[in-house]
This record gives sequence, C-alpha cells and structure tokens, in this order.
Amino acid sequence: MSPPLMVRFHGGAAGAWRVTRMHALAGAPLPAVARLAVEESADPSPVAGIAWSLRGSTGNLRYTSRVEANSLAMRQQGLARPDARRAALIPIRKNAAWWALAQDERRAILEEESRHIAIGMDYLPAIARRLHHCRELGEPFDFLTWFEYAPEHEPAFDEMLERLRAQREWHFVEREVDIRLVRDAA
Amino acid sequence: MSPPLMVRFHGGAAGAWRVTRMHALAGAPLPAVARLAVEESADPSPVAGIAWSLRGSTGNLRYTSRVEANSLAMRQQGLARPDARRAALIPIRKNAAWWALAQDERRAILEEESRHIAIGMDYLPAIARRLHHCRELGEPFDFLTWFEYAPEHEPAFDEMLERLRAQREWHFVEREVDIRLVRDAA
Repeated sequence: MSPPLMVRFHGGAAGAWRVTRMHALAGAPLPAVARLAVEESADPSPVAGIAWSLRGSTGNLRYTSRVEANSLAMRQQGLARPDARRAALIPIRKNAAWWALAQDERRAILEEESRHIAIGMDYLPAIARRLHHCRELGEPFDFLTWFEYAPEHEPAFDEMLERLRAQREWHFVEREVDIRLVRDAA
Repeated sequence: MSPPLMVRFHGGAAGAWRVTRMHALAGAPLPAVARLAVEESADPSPVAGIAWSLRGSTGNLRYTSRVEANSLAMRQQGLARPDARRAALIPIRKNAAWWALAQDERRAILEEESRHIAIGMDYLPAIARRLHHCRELGEPFDFLTWFEYAPEHEPAFDEMLERLRAQREWHFVEREVDIRLVRDAA
C-alpha cells in the first residue's frame, strides 16, 4: 500500500489520451473535450487549454476484506501495460442517502448485495483499475475511477459496467460520466 | 450526515482558544504557540501570526456500524456548548502497517479488540468530539480530532485518553500531539 497519490485529470486540448466518447449516465455532463492529460505530480504545472480539471487521491481500502484483497492482488495487473491502449475515466457522485449510511450498511449494499468487488474480479487481469477519492477534497464528484485495457477487451469492459450498473448500489449514484479514451501510437 | 466540512486549525498568536499545554506523545512535536484559531470556511482568509496550520475534512463514518451510530446519536451533544470552555486538538498519524491493512482487519483492531467506539461512548455526553480526515489531503497527520468539554470533565477526558492509548490500536500511532485549550471568557 503506497502513500496517497494525488492525481489530476485535465480535459482539454492536450494530453496523451484522445477522447472518443463522453456520456453522462446520471446528472450533469462534463463539457466535451478532445484530449485528456493525467498528471500524478503533487505540485501541478499549468497545462494549456484546459476545459475542466478533476482531482482525486488514491487511498486505503474502504470496504475490501483481507481475503478479497489477497484475491485481487493475485490477479490484478498495474497501469501502463504496453497493450493497454484504451482507457476510461468514470467520475461518480453518490447521493446523501448513501453517505448517511453507517459502514456496515454501505458494505452490505456494495458487496453482500451488489457484488461490486466480485464482479470487478471477474474481469481481472484484463481490466486494470485505480480508484481516486475526492469527496473530502471539495470536488464535484466522490470518486474518479480509471480503467486501462487492450482494445480487444472493450466488450468485456462494457459488460462489467452493465453488470455493476444493474445493482442496487447504483440506485445511490446521482452523477456519473463515462469518458472513453484511446492512447495514440507513439 | 452533513456534506464534508473543511476545517483549518491555525496555531499562532491569534484565535479564540488559548493554548495551555502542547505535548508530543509520539513523533515530532509541533512548534509551541500561544493561541489557536479554528476556521470552518471553505475559502480561508489570511490569519496574522500563524506558526502552523493544519486542515482536515469531516466525512462519512469509516468503521461505525448502524447500531453504534444510533447509540452515539442518542447520547452525544454538539460543539460550542456554553459550558464547554475547554478543548483539545489531537492530531494523529498512523503508520504504514495500519494503512496496509484491509477494512475488516482495521475494524477488528479498532473496535472488536481495542473498543475505540465503546470507550468514547462511556464519556458521552460530557466529551463532545468531531473527527477530521486529512491523510488524503497531503497533510502531515491522518486525523485531527477536536474535543470540547466543561472544565470539571477534564479528569474524565484524561482517563478516556489513557484507556484509548493503552489499546493495541495505538501501536499503529507513529505521531501524536496533544494540544489543550481554554476558551477565554467573553
């Protein structure tokens, strides 16, 4: 477990990732942009032509048990694999009812009922994932989840999202934007 | 459950709270200051004579179950009670081993073993408390806990801290500063 890493996602005219689609599934969309830059620096430098900027911090496990964490660690792969030329950034905000729940209530909905962790596990190692928290940073979203995969795994990625979004956990999602990206050949 | 509130604690020459004692129980101390200002504004204004500034955000329950949350809600009182003229600010940082634990492991140490929530409950409503998270803000501490109580409850407060610090949860605390405060008569 590394120390928290602050990551900034800049939507605009520059960046390594070309935006192929932006779709608001719930709540307000984000302004359309051509490219996305991902910046992991704690001390951000100015980026030209930014339309919007979202930031979030990696952090400790909030719901995952030791047994689940060990299963994930055995299967998952890191970011920046050479063949993972597709990505998705999915910012999500959950509603006040979700955040008013106690820890055991949220865990019960997220996993015992909605199988969030188990569904994600079904798509490892093809779909790599990093979660960033931003609710307590005063940001417009609660989470920014970043996914990376090879082009041939995009159908599997879509299937995973469809399964997750059909669960009761998603009744608590009040804003969700699905941003698809392609890394240009070097 | 209110939305997250960013709170700044400014140690220096100004502020409603007079510092009576600063004691580092683990790790580096904080520079000695005469007064503490507590600022709840999201848009902070400059404060004169600041020696150090810590910030944290209130947030959702991380470990507390529904049963525990209901018991707490029945007993606890809010901040700023007229007779609560004493306060303590206790910044804490836990070590890497704590943050590498999964959610079920941290809960088991915090409550099933160390009775953190139950011990705090024993001192309600006398000791009012608000927890601020700052690990993911890039701050030097992980938590800032703020306590308020009437002068006659300071021995009970000391007893509560002694009980908590004797638990195994505290083996994971690598930095802790105990700052005691008095609110001057208006």
